[in-house]
Amino acid sequence: MSSERLIYMPLGGAGEIGMNAYVYGYGAPDKERLILVDLGVTFPDMDGSPGVDLILPDITWLKDRADRLDAIFITHAHEDHVGAVAHFYRDLGAPVYARAFTANIARGKMAEFGHPEEAVRTVSAWPEQVEAGPFRVGFLPISHSIPESAGLVIDSPEGRVIHSGDFKLDPNPVVGEAFDPELWAEVARPGVRALICDSTNVFSAAPGRSESELGEPIEALVAKAKGMVVATTFASNVARVKTLAEAGERAGRSIVLLGRAMRRMIEAAVETGVLRSFPKVMSPEEALEIPRENLMLLVTGSQGERRAASAQLARGKYRGLTLAEGDLFLFSSKTIPGNERGVIRIMNQLSEKGVDVVDDAGGLYHVSGHANRPDLERMHQIVQPQMLIPMHGEHRHLREHARLAEARGIASVIAVNGMMLDLSGNAPTVAGYVETGRTYLDGSVKIGALDGIVRDRIRMALNGHVVVSVVMDEEDEPIDGAWVDLMGLAGTGTSKAPLADVLEEDLAQFLGRAGRKTLTDDDKLEEGLRRVARQSAQTEIGKKPEVTVVISRLG
Amino acid sequence: MSSERLIYMPLGGAGEIGMNAYVYGYGAPDKERLILVDLGVTFPDMDGSPGVDLILPDITWLKDRADRLDAIFITHAHEDHVGAVAHFYRDLGAPVYARAFTANIARGKMAEFGHPEEAVRTVSAWPEQVEAGPFRVGFLPISHSIPESAGLVIDSPEGRVIHSGDFKLDPNPVVGEAFDPELWAEVARPGVRALICDSTNVFSAAPGRSESELGEPIEALVAKAKGMVVATTFASNVARVKTLAEAGERAGRSIVLLGRAMRRMIEAAVETGVLRSFPKVMSPEEALEIPRENLMLLVTGSQGERRAASAQLARGKYRGLTLAEGDLFLFSSKTIPGNERGVIRIMNQLSEKGVDVVDDAGGLYHVSGHANRPDLERMHQIVQPQMLIPMHGEHRHLREHARLAEARGIASVIAVNGMMLDLSGNAPTVAGYVETGRTYLDGSVKIGALDGIVRDRIRMALNGHVVVSVVMDEEDEPIDGAWVDLMGLAGTGTSKAPLADVLEEDLAQFLGRAGRKTLTDDDKLEEGLRRVARQSAQTEIGKKPEVTVVISRLG
Repeated sequence: MSSERLIYMPLGGAGEIGMNAYVYGYGAPDKERLILVDLGVTFPDMDGSPGVDLILPDITWLKDRADRLDAIFITHAHEDHVGAVAHFYRDLGAPVYARAFTANIARGKMAEFGHPEEAVRTVSAWPEQVEAGPFRVGFLPISHSIPESAGLVIDSPEGRVIHSGDFKLDPNPVVGEAFDPELWAEVARPGVRALICDSTNVFSAAPGRSESELGEPIEALVAKAKGMVVATTFASNVARVKTLAEAGERAGRSIVLLGRAMRRMIEAAVETGVLRSFPKVMSPEEALEIPRENLMLLVTGSQGERRAASAQLARGKYRGLTLAEGDLFLFSSKTIPGNERGVIRIMNQLSEKGVDVVDDAGGLYHVSGHANRPDLERMHQIVQPQMLIPMHGEHRHLREHARLAEARGIASVIAVNGMMLDLSGNAPTVAGYVETGRTYLDGSVKIGALDGIVRDRIRMALNGHVVVSVVMDEEDEPIDGAWVDLMGLAGTGTSKAPLADVLEEDLAQFLGRAGRKTLTDDDKLEEGLRRVARQSAQTEIGKKPEVTVVISRLG
Repeated sequence: MSSERLIYMPLGGAGEIGMNAYVYGYGAPDKERLILVDLGVTFPDMDGSPGVDLILPDITWLKDRADRLDAIFITHAHEDHVGAVAHFYRDLGAPVYARAFTANIARGKMAEFGHPEEAVRTVSAWPEQVEAGPFRVGFLPISHSIPESAGLVIDSPEGRVIHSGDFKLDPNPVVGEAFDPELWAEVARPGVRALICDSTNVFSAAPGRSESELGEPIEALVAKAKGMVVATTFASNVARVKTLAEAGERAGRSIVLLGRAMRRMIEAAVETGVLRSFPKVMSPEEALEIPRENLMLLVTGSQGERRAASAQLARGKYRGLTLAEGDLFLFSSKTIPGNERGVIRIMNQLSEKGVDVVDDAGGLYHVSGHANRPDLERMHQIVQPQMLIPMHGEHRHLREHARLAEARGIASVIAVNGMMLDLSGNAPTVAGYVETGRTYLDGSVKIGALDGIVRDRIRMALNGHVVVSVVMDEEDEPIDGAWVDLMGLAGTGTSKAPLADVLEEDLAQFLGRAGRKTLTDDDKLEEGLRRVARQSAQTEIGKKPEVTVVISRLG
């Protein structure tokens, strides 16, 4: 019996949508050679991570084993799969492999950080395979909502594993390769030990729809528009951007790309040959000279992001362009849960300007990039894996996907972030648990999600902040009582006197009554002042604020 | 020509969903006698109003004219229509009129604040009318998602106006009166000058569905459940709670109501005779003695509210009851935009416990309480008003509803909060604008939304907070440099030295270089210290924090 084993462990993406990072390993326990599949980010929100710039996986475990890491493979260029590559380049050092379009995007990120672009290596589609320690890895093309998405064929001494990446089964994806069931079946024919499979749309009961279904309805919509047309979608959905642009062109409109990501993605698609034709585009400056009914703007910000082109246009202007009564604004997108408020804000700002807003409520102007439940079943059928490990999804998605597989007699288990599976046997077994979590990029610094820093910010936001300062003289007696500064708190409460005055009076009384033991001990003094400030505020305004006590001792 | 006029002005609810408050007036300009229809609240969120307890309309305009206010009429007992009644009772003083169920809820609110319950007066359904200055107002029953919702028939010397309240056209609402098209047509027959009409569902293209359609699917779902069944919905949807409870009873389960609002609403419905039969309920303590497969819990928190019963059950336990593998949790509800994160969090926590979650994705377990587009058209047709003023909705809803009316040849205008309309002519005209906004209940204090208090909290949450304190001696020289306290900021940055040390060093240098003009002037000194602290933090951690400077001068 071999002492080697094949392991799988998600560090991100399993128990959440976003921040994908999956470790595979082969070798003797705790000596496995490792590869990493995807290294993505997720996005902060005011509820849980105010002030944070970006959320990265906690890769401490992998960093501590960087000498065993042979390669990083990126399935596709979405931020939740490639976004953390440059942030962790110095920590991991391993070469990054991707197909041309993805590699182009990854190199752009490396360049921004001053890392060598050669760290990213372009790989052709299957049947090319990259040797990485005990693994041989190939990129098997599959359709998704971005060009050149790939499933990974991961061969090891324990046999073949397929990591689906994000995918849908699109026979006509407009840009890039159609899903090729014969190719997938052929790759699976020798037997697949495990299919590690996208789970995000497992609750969507109808078969997924093709990107190509959108051309006609979008063209009809644009054709009948009277004023300027603006359309927003994910910039990385190059097929969609092309469909939109062509609809504009056919309606005799000049196309303008607004937003950095929009230009960057089209550029990458053209540079890598993914996009072989695209209507001529015009700069915003040129567009200012053209009648609005002859313009179509393709803009970033479909998720309501406040700084993106959509939000700026809704608020006022972007690069000199403004919206007016009778213009049409198309959301060729779905609102990701959690982004509703931002999107609705834009819709209402547009309504106030008299702009007609069209979204996908009628199901005409957007299709998902992920495999729905029947598509997942079809994929199970094609690959016929010995075991299925649900990947990329919240817990409820993973659980449902595991059930789906088990209903077909395929062994399955729910593996969440930090759970290490041994895939060497007939069924997956849990080999251990690793501490994982989230790393916050905060300004230019990486901090731990549980460091307490962001918790303190949330507390200040909920409770307000009081600064109490006292100066103690050489005899440890307070000079002039305590001073109070308020931030984020009502100026007056029930007594109608200024809150700061009320607090200062209560604090002065406390200081007057305090004994030597308290006055000479910073900890005791601080604790007492904090308690009094909180009680006083509670009485006066019904809130217990955060309190910072500053004690200055002379001599 | 009469110098009197009939005016309408929303103070809340027009340009938003929630916080309804609509003023009507009749008389000579600026001397009109006034009535108020509804006085509701809306709910804070971390994005825009962290730490706030409740959002109330800004009624300054009305308070300044309280001597001209003859009555307040409440259409129904939803919080966004009745929630602010007790908060503003002292400011407005006017009697509150409502039907029995609504009055019961309103009196409960008055009692909580120690206001006289007699301030709330119960009115029977149409044809009873209340005299209020120049107005005669009647409550015309209409179906909605709460018992005894009413449209208001508002008669004035300028004729009849109908204020729809929130409504749907339900021929069989399970609890309370069915929509009675003949009665509405009869009331409208003498001619209706204006229909002020609910707009929230104007984008829903299909006709609304009856509450009674849910009984069968819910019963089938509960009948086949194996473990404990938990169902959540809005507590105020008494019909739904009844449907759920009866499904449980038929499946041989004992019913438990969890959450204060759930018990309060059923109590009010029984007390007022609205609910004449309801399955026997059991206390949580009794339920602990019953096998879980014989239990059905009806719980609050369908919107993911962190402190409600649903969230507590998902996290662990509530009143001793816990969930287990194989239990069923039904969301008989729709997630209100903005609440997705909270609801999804609960769903995943339930998934981790092995609980099966069912929601309304398949359209079987929830119906809306509002009139969809075809229902609105039917209402226009029945009432045949001279003009239609869209009410209760975001700007996009109001705009779409106004278009819908205009397409039928009914005069309309978009009136947002603070816009005063003159309804005396053949078509509505804008009579002026009033400053309106939101009032925050923050702890026990009311503050203005634009006072800057909440803005400061948001800034601390986004940027962190630095407290810089210096003590200046009798000669205006700093003693011991500056001290720094950090809150919500990374402890170390690029230099790897503690951030506080780096800041203190930079601040000490600044103090060392500062001239007499700066050292003797608190404003200059504060400005300089703030600038240095922000720059230093920017260099070190890439963030510019909020800074509070505390200067203590001796002598």
